[in-house]
Amino acid sequence: MLTVFGSTALDTIRTPKKVLKNVLGGAATFASISASFFEKPGLIAVVGTDFPKKYHNILKKYVDLKGLSILDGKTFRYDGKYDKTLSNRKTLKTELNVLGDFKPSVPDEYKKSDFVYLANNDPEQNSKIIKEFDNVKFSMCDTIEFWITTKRNAVIKMIKSVDAVVINDEEARLLTKEENLITCAKKMMGWGAKYIVIKKGEHGSLLFHEDVIFPSVGFSLESVVDPTGAGDSFAGAMIGYLASKKKTSFSEIKRSVIYGNVMGSFAVERYGVNALTRLKRQDITKRIKLYEKMTTF
Amino acid sequence: MLTVFGSTALDTIRTPKKVLKNVLGGAATFASISASFFEKPGLIAVVGTDFPKKYHNILKKYVDLKGLSILDGKTFRYDGKYDKTLSNRKTLKTELNVLGDFKPSVPDEYKKSDFVYLANNDPEQNSKIIKEFDNVKFSMCDTIEFWITTKRNAVIKMIKSVDAVVINDEEARLLTKEENLITCAKKMMGWGAKYIVIKKGEHGSLLFHEDVIFPSVGFSLESVVDPTGAGDSFAGAMIGYLASKKKTSFSEIKRSVIYGNVMGSFAVERYGVNALTRLKRQDITKRIKLYEKMTTF
Repeated sequence: MLTVFGSTALDTIRTPKKVLKNVLGGAATFASISASFFEKPGLIAVVGTDFPKKYHNILKKYVDLKGLSILDGKTFRYDGKYDKTLSNRKTLKTELNVLGDFKPSVPDEYKKSDFVYLANNDPEQNSKIIKEFDNVKFSMCDTIEFWITTKRNAVIKMIKSVDAVVINDEEARLLTKEENLITCAKKMMGWGAKYIVIKKGEHGSLLFHEDVIFPSVGFSLESVVDPTGAGDSFAGAMIGYLASKKKTSFSEIKRSVIYGNVMGSFAVERYGVNALTRLKRQDITKRIKLYEKMTTF
Repeated sequence: MLTVFGSTALDTIRTPKKVLKNVLGGAATFASISASFFEKPGLIAVVGTDFPKKYHNILKKYVDLKGLSILDGKTFRYDGKYDKTLSNRKTLKTELNVLGDFKPSVPDEYKKSDFVYLANNDPEQNSKIIKEFDNVKFSMCDTIEFWITTKRNAVIKMIKSVDAVVINDEEARLLTKEENLITCAKKMMGWGAKYIVIKKGEHGSLLFHEDVIFPSVGFSLESVVDPTGAGDSFAGAMIGYLASKKKTSFSEIKRSVIYGNVMGSFAVERYGVNALTRLKRQDITKRIKLYEKMTTF
């Protein structure tokens, strides 16, 4: 059983070609929908009473919502603008709203989860909630600049309490205060995580475990529409794939990273969650095969 | 038979840790030494009378020097400074010296070369010299920002006259005026080259041929000392490998790119040409095996 804990948001996404207001977003939204193609996850998250019925219905289609709290007030909102290369995003506004007061807890039905993904939450909340699970076989977390700059020690403590960290390259450098990504990963493994995945956007990712590195390319795309949620979809695919296999051997973790690269590549092809919600299982299988074929030498 | 045409230089390299003055450098130096591990190349290049005997001896060890002209005057000099990440280099000074008046021609002994690499030369010179070979099976060129900004049309014309272009990502974008690397490659193939290799530094490279993409990772290194010559070593390994196989099938071109990634990774581990000149053939075989092992999933 798989549980994802993290944010559900109403996003305003500004790309050079289009501005979308108050669309379904949030790290846990992307991660849990992505994971659902492999194993239906339970979602621990919060929304406000303004959360549109249509978005509720989208979530319901992919994930179990026993862990979704609906609180009086407004849903967490994020507003960000991409530059013309779509490689850099500037945060214009963050309104925590109901997320600010949310006291998450694990529903009894989810406590037996053996796979748990802690999305970009407050690291103290992550460290606390992971203890509420009785039977964790594999736990994974991500983190973001905001927590690294405001609660670095808590982030380091959180890393001790999980099996794997998924983090992007810039955040890995910021967190570890190291430039070289191998050095970054070694430092994070020294803090306690057994597996580190450093995401490098279009350049793919690096998986680290003990003294082994598994570098993998991104799936090359000619058209990128909206990078929002790509990293969360990557992580969701990893944990979803592993939960579906009920295995955590290194070779399965490597394969989960390939699924991460592929699901991340789908995510950026349409605005918001639209690429994921149009996806069929056979599209994924087809792209995995294409990925294998294109990288073979 | 393999010929490399390009620059031989005395480099001043400024890294955050060390400054090296007037060390052996130049695109053709790195490319031809790198190629020599697979097939001994002939070198068409020019140096001045100030070119140190010890550097002459290094070159002689790896390449055939019938094509090396020694002209009255000073050797081409380059002076560049890396930032602290070693990812960006600023040119402080370029002195063409004897390179400015050099009128290259192909020695008779080299005219039967079936493999030819045209390093970062004046694109008009490259287009002219490639015609002097009688029997070219596979030709490849690189280019740099200087030629793209000063002789863009000549660069495009040069691309028409070769089989393959090896170019780094930023220069591909500058040349094609496109952002997406697939679009960049398609444009360059539209100009006439059949194979495009876009180098992405530590992130590896993308090989394009017709509608096929072959992405490959860089060989991950924990310690990078001096990136000078990495791209030239990459290209030299490609052409040297292909010349040694006497084959230009797509599967051999893919393998040549893997050798490119690996030789580029060696090049950055020591200052200047020192990493290449310390290298043994078995070091390369070992790292190729490690590369294959680390990328397998």
